[in-house]
Amino acid sequence: MRTADELRDAVEAYLGSLALAPELGALEQPLRYSLESGGKRVRPLLCLAVAEANGASLEDAMPAAAALELVHTFSLVHDDLPALDDDDERRGRPSAHVAFGDGVALLAGDALLAEAFRLALTYESPEVARHLAAATLGMIGGQYRDITGDTADLEELHGLKPGRLFVAAVQIGLEVAAVGAGERPRWVAFGEDVGLLFQVVDDLLDGDGYADRLGTEATRALADDVAARASSRLDELACDTTVLRDLLDALTFRTG
Amino acid sequence: MRTADELRDAVEAYLGSLALAPELGALEQPLRYSLESGGKRVRPLLCLAVAEANGASLEDAMPAAAALELVHTFSLVHDDLPALDDDDERRGRPSAHVAFGDGVALLAGDALLAEAFRLALTYESPEVARHLAAATLGMIGGQYRDITGDTADLEELHGLKPGRLFVAAVQIGLEVAAVGAGERPRWVAFGEDVGLLFQVVDDLLDGDGYADRLGTEATRALADDVAARASSRLDELACDTTVLRDLLDALTFRTG
Repeated sequence: MRTADELRDAVEAYLGSLALAPELGALEQPLRYSLESGGKRVRPLLCLAVAEANGASLEDAMPAAAALELVHTFSLVHDDLPALDDDDERRGRPSAHVAFGDGVALLAGDALLAEAFRLALTYESPEVARHLAAATLGMIGGQYRDITGDTADLEELHGLKPGRLFVAAVQIGLEVAAVGAGERPRWVAFGEDVGLLFQVVDDLLDGDGYADRLGTEATRALADDVAARASSRLDELACDTTVLRDLLDALTFRTG
Repeated sequence: MRTADELRDAVEAYLGSLALAPELGALEQPLRYSLESGGKRVRPLLCLAVAEANGASLEDAMPAAAALELVHTFSLVHDDLPALDDDDERRGRPSAHVAFGDGVALLAGDALLAEAFRLALTYESPEVARHLAAATLGMIGGQYRDITGDTADLEELHGLKPGRLFVAAVQIGLEVAAVGAGERPRWVAFGEDVGLLFQVVDDLLDGDGYADRLGTEATRALADDVAARASSRLDELACDTTVLRDLLDALTFRTG
């Protein structure tokens, strides 16, 4: 088993040398710019850790893990556009639309999504791509509710928005490792907790969402509860979950 | 064999009753608005006609054919946005972003692309979705060259932009009908001609592209040449190509 840092390095190396469709021409530049923005790579890491814990090789799991990061990056590039959140900065650098213009950023986002499917479709079975499509639709639905203010049910909204991609990361890791259907629900429940934890901590850091409704203390307590529940789910799994515990700790105590 | 009109009616009925991902919520409305805009459905028709000519059932081919129309519609919705072509009208109605706002139109386009993959992934084999991903990347690359003015090679540009989706329509029709690899190149060459014909006639109607470079008369002659070549390719195919000839005529002599 590799450590979380080793997995992260492997993801960076893979993304850095990823061959994009030659038809994209010079659009490759904004795609690479957006992909190399120093994110934490939580989704591919989660996928790789689940796949490795279940006996898959890193090589087998990597295209699927990268596809998850591409979908995540697609959503960031489009969300940053003036038509949506109108964010000029992303991780301390100009957002894609500031660096390359709105039209190119729009196309770069589209291309990232299409490239994600191309990667997910390098597998013999369509299952990886099916999970990715379902998660992408859930994310888009969540973003729609977000911008239209239909955020009555925060749990539902977050289950759709960031949560769906965390669950997909787990599902895809299980798929690559060919884990039996009977084994999966416990893993998927863990993925749901990780997605919720990510969002609750996000709200805590941003002072909105849960933090806005429940107050800081209650939100911190909620994060700890969800983390404890996720951790106890790992206890029940009969395999090496060291990396997943590290990931869980990093998400629970992150400060940015 | 059904007629082209019967196939078109079947496409309309299928798209009209297509169940979208429930997670999309009220985003379903702009998706349906964009899908029900009275297009000619050339791409799904081409796919269905190729599939039927090769012995596939309409039912088997329909999800793939619809996926092509969804990708086409995704590209129209995004191209119409102010960030790209800034078109306020589409087929005599307000474009999606005028009717629903830029942000919702952006998300609706994203959702159309993701729904297209969901449909293409209802097949047991990932091949349909693979063709769709490759064509989508080619289209996006073509659109990028278009907006950045890198249009030196018109044949290459058009091969990427609308052409890729016509070729994919043929490839996907062949895939659904399980046509052997040896049979495919002649069909794909036909698809390339149809894509080129579509673009040449488009330029003729808009007075740009080929019409701008070659003049009206030479462009009309080019369209006729490409149509004749496509027709002679059909002569060589040992199956009922009536619908494909009707489609070819409709594309050659269209006035809008």
